[in-house]
Amino acid sequence: MKTIRVSIIGFGAVGQGVAKVILDKQEYLESIGIDFKVVAIADSRTAAIDTNGVDLAALIARKNKEGTVGTEKLTGLKIIETIDHDLVVETTPTNIVTGGVGLENMLMAFKRKRNLVTSNKGPLAMQYSELMEAADAAGSKFLFEATVGGAMPVLNLARDALAGNKITNVEGIFNGTCNYILTRMMEEHAPYEQMLAEAQELGYAETDPTYDVEGIDTVCKMVILANCIFGMNATHEDVTVTGITKITPEALLLAHNDGYVIKLIGEVNDSRINVAPKLVPIDHPLAVGGSLNVASVQTDLSGPITVTGRGAGSIETASAILSDMISIYRN
Amino acid sequence: MKTIRVSIIGFGAVGQGVAKVILDKQEYLESIGIDFKVVAIADSRTAAIDTNGVDLAALIARKNKEGTVGTEKLTGLKIIETIDHDLVVETTPTNIVTGGVGLENMLMAFKRKRNLVTSNKGPLAMQYSELMEAADAAGSKFLFEATVGGAMPVLNLARDALAGNKITNVEGIFNGTCNYILTRMMEEHAPYEQMLAEAQELGYAETDPTYDVEGIDTVCKMVILANCIFGMNATHEDVTVTGITKITPEALLLAHNDGYVIKLIGEVNDSRINVAPKLVPIDHPLAVGGSLNVASVQTDLSGPITVTGRGAGSIETASAILSDMISIYRN
Repeated sequence: MKTIRVSIIGFGAVGQGVAKVILDKQEYLESIGIDFKVVAIADSRTAAIDTNGVDLAALIARKNKEGTVGTEKLTGLKIIETIDHDLVVETTPTNIVTGGVGLENMLMAFKRKRNLVTSNKGPLAMQYSELMEAADAAGSKFLFEATVGGAMPVLNLARDALAGNKITNVEGIFNGTCNYILTRMMEEHAPYEQMLAEAQELGYAETDPTYDVEGIDTVCKMVILANCIFGMNATHEDVTVTGITKITPEALLLAHNDGYVIKLIGEVNDSRINVAPKLVPIDHPLAVGGSLNVASVQTDLSGPITVTGRGAGSIETASAILSDMISIYRN
Repeated sequence: MKTIRVSIIGFGAVGQGVAKVILDKQEYLESIGIDFKVVAIADSRTAAIDTNGVDLAALIARKNKEGTVGTEKLTGLKIIETIDHDLVVETTPTNIVTGGVGLENMLMAFKRKRNLVTSNKGPLAMQYSELMEAADAAGSKFLFEATVGGAMPVLNLARDALAGNKITNVEGIFNGTCNYILTRMMEEHAPYEQMLAEAQELGYAETDPTYDVEGIDTVCKMVILANCIFGMNATHEDVTVTGITKITPEALLLAHNDGYVIKLIGEVNDSRINVAPKLVPIDHPLAVGGSLNVASVQTDLSGPITVTGRGAGSIETASAILSDMISIYRN
């Protein structure tokens, strides 16, 4: 049994999801010879630390009852710097203006030669090459499947299952909120504002939906794909973007009558990165409904490979993080 | 650079595809530190052997001109037994009555402690546990992504990208010939026989189409999934199967009017293995047209993950073999 000492930095929905899946998957993890021992958890105000392993179930319960994970005042950054451990799971919220605390956390993880798995898009969309250089210099493993499409595997699919293929294009639906709103506008022949309100009621959209509906979330994901798969050094400023707020039910109906749906499509290849609403034939693999995400990866040997899955959700995102964690430590 | 001595046993479309992709991907393979040196190739009558590495391009040309790969009379089985090498790529044709020469080849590969990658469904559908035990006893790596859905990754997706997930169900379209015939019957409102003839003309269906249209090919794939993912010890005799030959254009039209398509669906979970035509909602991720394959993997953490791709084709199948080869030897 290999014991890996882990910190979870950020203890919102995703961080708690990671704690839950580590708990739930003890038996499976033992069967593959891995013991993830969480020695520290930080939320934005407090921390819980125990070098013998914290009580994950108790800390999840405490966080939900008290609003804080612990009583210690150590920041996530200080934990990464000072607590002896192997792997940082960084799940602080995405900040695409400054990269936020996530960027500092990641750079500190590499400075301390720890491995890193993250769901935080901001730093990767803003400072990709700086992060990669720091990880390489430290010899740290750095995986981030959860940043692109939640449970839908794209980066790992390209790296493992499609190994040997040259990827020439990636396109798809990378934002479940937009897909939900457009799908419902079509179904109900209802205007954007009404279906946005429904999505907000159901928790599919934030009170301020700008980040999703203006395509910014999709832009971040395309930038990560551009850098990771196509070796670009792009930032979100390199992406042309149009959101979904101007789409009308009439446009959706006209498209439908011609056998098309309208979807917010992100596309990246070695010459461009683009996010915009596009017509998709109704029987095309990209034409998935509801809040699903979908990615179609064009390859030289295998042709197009399309993968569909849930793009969000705390357990789904935690699952992507867990598969990265396993990928680093499995023999 | 790690030099891996390889034999290719079976030099039809898939075996030649493997030779082509090894040639085409030299530069990429070098970049990841792997040199696949093919030291022997066998077709059903002849062999070419060179411990310094055969000339792949010349042998492909010879095979297409002369009909034989070489002048030596060594069988594939003898090559596996007597030529010193590391990895056997077994691409002889599937035989589901006896397992055929493929079964003997595979058992010999393990007897000689070689690693094995194959596209040959027969032995895996008939003698799965015997093969696994032999591989384990020998310490041989044994991968077979190409047996289930050609270029569409299913086994590797479940093992790597979905690591940590418990898979509770797999269903999908695993035979491109059936999908092509049903899609065209719907589009043309034409009877089965007519679209079978079209598929035969285009090379999508064999002269004797039984293996595809009666669902036997899908059965083999379901048995492999049942054994590999669900740890069963199933054979094709454990599967209930109905083919597509009785489906009428009227049935397809009635289904279409209710928002459904009819597809030959293979399904496997821990309690049953089934192959039969089923109604699928037209906007469901499984409702893909043409000759595509699709698999929907139900997981405990990630929900359903669906993957679509080309299920056949020599280069597509060779690509799945190459990704397995890389998976064994990449650090």
